[in-house]
Amino acid sequence: MKIGLLTSGGDCPGLNAVIRGAVLNGVKTYGHEFVGFRDGWRGVVEGDYMDLPRTKVRGLARQGGTILGTSRTNPFDGPNGGPENIEIMMERNEIDAIVAIGGEGTLAGAKRLADAGLPVVGVPKTIDNDLQATDYTFGFDTAVSIATDAMDRLRTTGESHHRAMVAEVMGRHVGWIALHSGMSAGAHAVLIPEQQVSMEQVAKWVSEVHERGRSPLVVVAEGFIPEGFDEVLHNKGVEKDGRPRLGGIGDYVTQEIERLTGIETRNTILGHIQRGGAPTGFDRVLATRLGMAVTDMVHDKEWGKMVALQGTEINRVDLSVALDGLKTVPQHRWEEAKVLFGR
Amino acid sequence: MKIGLLTSGGDCPGLNAVIRGAVLNGVKTYGHEFVGFRDGWRGVVEGDYMDLPRTKVRGLARQGGTILGTSRTNPFDGPNGGPENIEIMMERNEIDAIVAIGGEGTLAGAKRLADAGLPVVGVPKTIDNDLQATDYTFGFDTAVSIATDAMDRLRTTGESHHRAMVAEVMGRHVGWIALHSGMSAGAHAVLIPEQQVSMEQVAKWVSEVHERGRSPLVVVAEGFIPEGFDEVLHNKGVEKDGRPRLGGIGDYVTQEIERLTGIETRNTILGHIQRGGAPTGFDRVLATRLGMAVTDMVHDKEWGKMVALQGTEINRVDLSVALDGLKTVPQHRWEEAKVLFGR
Amino acid sequence: MKIGLLTSGGDCPGLNAVIRGAVLNGVKTYGHEFVGFRDGWRGVVEGDYMDLPRTKVRGLARQGGTILGTSRTNPFDGPNGGPENIEIMMERNEIDAIVAIGGEGTLAGAKRLADAGLPVVGVPKTIDNDLQATDYTFGFDTAVSIATDAMDRLRTTGESHHRAMVAEVMGRHVGWIALHSGMSAGAHAVLIPEQQVSMEQVAKWVSEVHERGRSPLVVVAEGFIPEGFDEVLHNKGVEKDGRPRLGGIGDYVTQEIERLTGIETRNTILGHIQRGGAPTGFDRVLATRLGMAVTDMVHDKEWGKMVALQGTEINRVDLSVALDGLKTVPQHRWEEAKVLFGR
Amino acid sequence: MKIGLLTSGGDCPGLNAVIRGAVLNGVKTYGHEFVGFRDGWRGVVEGDYMDLPRTKVRGLARQGGTILGTSRTNPFDGPNGGPENIEIMMERNEIDAIVAIGGEGTLAGAKRLADAGLPVVGVPKTIDNDLQATDYTFGFDTAVSIATDAMDRLRTTGESHHRAMVAEVMGRHVGWIALHSGMSAGAHAVLIPEQQVSMEQVAKWVSEVHERGRSPLVVVAEGFIPEGFDEVLHNKGVEKDGRPRLGGIGDYVTQEIERLTGIETRNTILGHIQRGGAPTGFDRVLATRLGMAVTDMVHDKEWGKMVALQGTEINRVDLSVALDGLKTVPQHRWEEAKVLFGR
Repeated sequence: MKIGLLTSGGDCPGLNAVIRGAVLNGVKTYGHEFVGFRDGWRGVVEGDYMDLPRTKVRGLARQGGTILGTSRTNPFDGPNGGPENIEIMMERNEIDAIVAIGGEGTLAGAKRLADAGLPVVGVPKTIDNDLQATDYTFGFDTAVSIATDAMDRLRTTGESHHRAMVAEVMGRHVGWIALHSGMSAGAHAVLIPEQQVSMEQVAKWVSEVHERGRSPLVVVAEGFIPEGFDEVLHNKGVEKDGRPRLGGIGDYVTQEIERLTGIETRNTILGHIQRGGAPTGFDRVLATRLGMAVTDMVHDKEWGKMVALQGTEINRVDLSVALDGLKTVPQHRWEEAKVLFGR
Repeated sequence: MKIGLLTSGGDCPGLNAVIRGAVLNGVKTYGHEFVGFRDGWRGVVEGDYMDLPRTKVRGLARQGGTILGTSRTNPFDGPNGGPENIEIMMERNEIDAIVAIGGEGTLAGAKRLADAGLPVVGVPKTIDNDLQATDYTFGFDTAVSIATDAMDRLRTTGESHHRAMVAEVMGRHVGWIALHSGMSAGAHAVLIPEQQVSMEQVAKWVSEVHERGRSPLVVVAEGFIPEGFDEVLHNKGVEKDGRPRLGGIGDYVTQEIERLTGIETRNTILGHIQRGGAPTGFDRVLATRLGMAVTDMVHDKEWGKMVALQGTEINRVDLSVALDGLKTVPQHRWEEAKVLFGR
Repeated sequence: MKIGLLTSGGDCPGLNAVIRGAVLNGVKTYGHEFVGFRDGWRGVVEGDYMDLPRTKVRGLARQGGTILGTSRTNPFDGPNGGPENIEIMMERNEIDAIVAIGGEGTLAGAKRLADAGLPVVGVPKTIDNDLQATDYTFGFDTAVSIATDAMDRLRTTGESHHRAMVAEVMGRHVGWIALHSGMSAGAHAVLIPEQQVSMEQVAKWVSEVHERGRSPLVVVAEGFIPEGFDEVLHNKGVEKDGRPRLGGIGDYVTQEIERLTGIETRNTILGHIQRGGAPTGFDRVLATRLGMAVTDMVHDKEWGKMVALQGTEINRVDLSVALDGLKTVPQHRWEEAKVLFGR
Repeated sequence: MKIGLLTSGGDCPGLNAVIRGAVLNGVKTYGHEFVGFRDGWRGVVEGDYMDLPRTKVRGLARQGGTILGTSRTNPFDGPNGGPENIEIMMERNEIDAIVAIGGEGTLAGAKRLADAGLPVVGVPKTIDNDLQATDYTFGFDTAVSIATDAMDRLRTTGESHHRAMVAEVMGRHVGWIALHSGMSAGAHAVLIPEQQVSMEQVAKWVSEVHERGRSPLVVVAEGFIPEGFDEVLHNKGVEKDGRPRLGGIGDYVTQEIERLTGIETRNTILGHIQRGGAPTGFDRVLATRLGMAVTDMVHDKEWGKMVALQGTEINRVDLSVALDGLKTVPQHRWEEAKVLFGR
């Protein structure tokens, strides 16, 4: 078989490890051949791909990013998109299967193509850990690790200056990174999209900690919506109540804490460093196993499925299951975390 | 309630995070009181403990080791050991429950005490990840992370000198650390206690890699037994077949590779650095949640059980289930890893 | 002797190592006694200090921040400030000498007090590395190390998305952190306060790199002033030429690159993580040696001086030498770095 | 000009950064051409080299090891060695200059060739930091950083088990790595080749620390010779006084501490991880600058010299100066460190 791989959507530590795992297993176990579509679905639609011999995947387990490039192109758009055109492209290039490594949008595209009869499978990828049917996605552990390390640093500077520190982490729709990095760093409040909290409550938590002589650490996910707001503040650059607001939610939370508590407060937006660089050991193992397993699944011609971590095993699940809504932070995890807030 | 915590056996990153999670949840949710027995069961047997107010657990999430100290004392030994004496000690000090944080031996002791009617529960701890009934144990991810980082370094020095590199990691009875760190670092052979392999096979894998112009990396668990041997070589300091052998299995494997392939080979024993220092984010979250959950379980007076990670949830399981044999690397994980060896 | 230590100004990894070095050398070599003023000069002016026995400095070599706290209080302000009051405070508390650990402002205050006859000495501290008379200041190496690590991560995400990446680092008046971290990370342009560069030139460097198929990395110090501007843009929140500008210079540079080159560009502000957390080995050794040396200098009653790294030795220099203007990036270091830009 | 680079002797983080700096400066500033001899002097003697266009040095600043390979071949040995043969090789391949990146042996070879009239210059390389005329050599800071990180980990495990911990670091002839990593990690004794110390003294330091309730950390360089011994114990595998000894000096020191103090003691040999992997920011900057500077020096045809870090500048010095004996740890640095031992 000749198998085409693609990586799509935001990059994520572990993408290269998936590619390596898929190629090594395919070449060594089955004698399959691999090509890599350039820049996600764009490469599929335009028939733009590179050869992927095993020499090309050397040393990729520990390399961040994706050697295939990525984009947010949709496989159904444009004159060359859609299942018919893609089928023609595959035939012309003698490509027998497509492995789409990506998040919700990518997998939704993969499902539509599989539903149309194309030999397509998926590998779940989301740094936010928001996909159903898989316990964790690769990249998430690396993001938590980077955020934890950064917060450990913020703690010492906060203590020295008797300040409150705010750290804004990724998570537009779900709070997994905030929850795990916050618990890991011993945060005194974690603010996530799933739970509206009033700024008065946040200020109360912060004050309680400050009164005990400690430097409060507040972790806020990009998509957190304070009580009283209808939508995400991120990167709007607008104002409310006449107070100036520079950036996203981290800046807003910082200003409100300072205003309500009188405690000097500083914001740090971790930003793109959360999704780059070498994956953690956990993510390398997970990504390698997913890559190996997806090749087995392709070999078995189980189209329309994806591979997923469940407990300690890699299982095959229907793409439809994975696409059944975002995996948000459940209420009991929020209650668990909240015990550690404030006081 | 007044709850006594103890940490027993080899130390492990995350022990302090368990203590912190248990105390914070107990104090804030239930108003419980905590004490910490010094040096594991020794403190129980001798009634030697310290007060554990919440101020004492500040900042512990990221601190390696255990503030309680640890030892390998057995709670049934000596004139003050055994359930009757321990019960008297608990009554005299008004301690209502014991939380034993430890590995197989510790949990077996806890079970025997619980079977004798004492209010004892457990938290699983093993850096080797060899306990049943829990997907992972804290400390394991940190060990894999440290080993991976070290192996990344060994790779570049191996390539520069055209050498084969051997890395000996922990794992007397199971190969989990070797398997995960080896897969993570892109090792060309991983040797584990669960699988006897001949040195000729290892030499073949090494030669194949060397012939492709790369520097072979071989990861070996302390407890690996080469084909033709009956028992573990570790730290025996003896010889076989007239060849000198300095240390443990890593040295033996190194010498044999060099003898059989003619390739210059170097051994590195990672040793104690694998079990010290700050835990990874993954381990901090896991340990914190286990600590919080065990306090809930004590509050519910479910004696004779332990808390365990299953999928993404912390569940309560009977200690007997956890003690039903070592959790070894299963055959399909070995087959999966083996695809990546050699060639 | 009874010696009072203080840490003043922005915190910096290594402050605690200086304190530890000073106390251990003083206690063990000379039998001196130590106290620590709380929050810099505020503690001096208010006579607010804590005892610093050697048990208090245990494990401080690797701990970020300062256990003494810090502030930006001036020793000459307020009803209790000025040399006469401070002398009275010292007599009342039997404090024989003051060691001020701080940057330009702190050392200027120390010099004025020494000129007024008080037994005061200094230890240079600036994360920006902008003090004369010392080759490096502690904290600088840690900041470069953190920034380098972050930029390594930005590189992989830039390559995957074919973007240009901008990293804003500390440095309001000098470009040392930008220069060293940029050279370390292989940046394609480094923008520093010492050198005005037009945005057209920056865009040219970025385009050249992008045309060679690589992801351009631009490092910009907070205090960089683009050609055509009169002053620093940092945190002004104003606009120019009708284009919106959210934050500081990093945002401005990012927008201009995107506007002039058409290449998707992303900014990351490293912010407070650069000054927190465990110091590097280099900074721990430097800070420990400075701390030990300042105790020797106090013992020798050489007031009005500071200790400084020159080559590999710690020497004593007059505070006036250190205060003779900022140590900026010299022209030949800029020319050296510029060879690596663009193309 | 066509310039040939070689890396020789033990590998060292920063070698690739030197190569990159030399090539980028040469190509961009002067239009020079570069080739890389394979495996040190072997490539010179055998005329075995690869083309080094600037695309080949992409991303090398952060890559450990050397892409040129290394060996311990001597340029004067064999039928093709010696200045006449090398001159013929250079003419035949139109190579105008040789840049030898290496330690004492390599630079001695370079000097002999330069004395014979060949256009040869050097770049100092030694992870041990034992070369005269340069304040630091690249690789040393990385080794200290890795060792410090490992020792931080050993500390927590030592404290938990009430053990003494021994860490054996590199340094056959000089104690720089031991001195700096030991000071950085807060070691309670540092044993270096330059200073004979009795095991009774070491045991005294260890006991003093243990009595204060702390876990003693002893750092020992490979080349340390205890009082009463005439030569280095490293890797001899022999015994003395009937006591068994498995490995090198670390094992001996460990056994003696245990024997003399009765305190459980564990050894860790850091070994090859000290010389592999990504260089620190400090080493990347130093190595890049040395590479750039050596190209300038070649352009100026100043043969028989090497580039060296002195203070903050890169200067040119005669190879003879660098070869004038090992740079050992001077007495005043030993006295300084000793203040921190024991008690």
